[in-house]
Amino acid sequence: MDRWTFYTGAGTCALATHIALHEAGADFALVKLDFASQQQRSDEYLRINPKGRVPALATAQGVLTETPALLVFVAQQFPDRNLAPLDDAFAFARMQELNSYLASTMHVAHAHKRRGARWADDAAAIEAMQKKVPQTMRACAEHIEHNLIGPWALGERYSVADGYLYTIASWLEADGVDTSTLPRLLAHRARMNARPAVQRAQAEGG
Amino acid sequence: MDRWTFYTGAGTCALATHIALHEAGADFALVKLDFASQQQRSDEYLRINPKGRVPALATAQGVLTETPALLVFVAQQFPDRNLAPLDDAFAFARMQELNSYLASTMHVAHAHKRRGARWADDAAAIEAMQKKVPQTMRACAEHIEHNLIGPWALGERYSVADGYLYTIASWLEADGVDTSTLPRLLAHRARMNARPAVQRAQAEGG
Repeated sequence: MDRWTFYTGAGTCALATHIALHEAGADFALVKLDFASQQQRSDEYLRINPKGRVPALATAQGVLTETPALLVFVAQQFPDRNLAPLDDAFAFARMQELNSYLASTMHVAHAHKRRGARWADDAAAIEAMQKKVPQTMRACAEHIEHNLIGPWALGERYSVADGYLYTIASWLEADGVDTSTLPRLLAHRARMNARPAVQRAQAEGG
Repeated sequence: MDRWTFYTGAGTCALATHIALHEAGADFALVKLDFASQQQRSDEYLRINPKGRVPALATAQGVLTETPALLVFVAQQFPDRNLAPLDDAFAFARMQELNSYLASTMHVAHAHKRRGARWADDAAAIEAMQKKVPQTMRACAEHIEHNLIGPWALGERYSVADGYLYTIASWLEADGVDTSTLPRLLAHRARMNARPAVQRAQAEGG
């Protein structure tokens, strides 16, 4: 396999795929984009990912984007690492269900804090969106807390969804959510923090 | 296999899974929720899907939600129908990439028209969100138009992503987007309209 190049940015959802790559034992080159200087919008990067976002994974076949797609792709490329229930369609759907919820509901809720300009031009409207983030993120966190059996997102079996959940849930406190009433999520975070792949991705990407 | 029950609502993204079920030749009971009377928020339905949304698919193993998860699940349950590139990890990732973009970017852009109350409480803010929908939906549609080789979303091979693209793109005109400059999307729509599974799902779900 040609060596992959992985594009990330500090504090972004790309951490989820970064964790998956290390859990897989993948060999890849890491490119950290500087979001403070809008490097993700540079001509050079837009030639790699025209959407101007991270994560992106450059492979010999082409560039792949979108966290739920990348997580499954990494798991499929390293089947011996058991990073997804590839042999059980229902369990796989459960994992995809969580990944999709994290992408299209919880990450979207979070994005209304700093990225409100995506959906309105008016400054007062953007401020009104920011105000509701603690409420919407709390609702998402409670939905997950309620459904999280543990020790991992899918139960006994660790999967790439755990790195994704860990990543999005790491934003809760800064988004104004009191996590002291979310013991399952906090226990999940603690278990994740103990994994070498998580520690390595955090150290490299931060 | 026990008979599935599929929950949908007219004019929703559940059409994508409805199409996939007919493309698969699945045998299922159809339940149409009346969104005008907020049936998706009824106690009865919240026991099926606590998120109060469609689509939902009740199976013998449990209820599955989230369009990208359901589309793959249906394709995997009927492998002979070739509804997804299950034998090619890169092509599968390309399909998932599109499904994820439709769910977390394009559907979310659309939702700011009628569902702004999800992200702000202020009436003026909700109105400001509505104003930007033609612009955000146009940007999404142009991204897809630019990347759509055809005849199908993934090229020569039809997949469940086609039903999803068709569903979300069917909202463009009502969202204020002039589609006359999007010939590939319009050609895709025409090809989809000619498929019996699409006609059947439209007739049943409308």
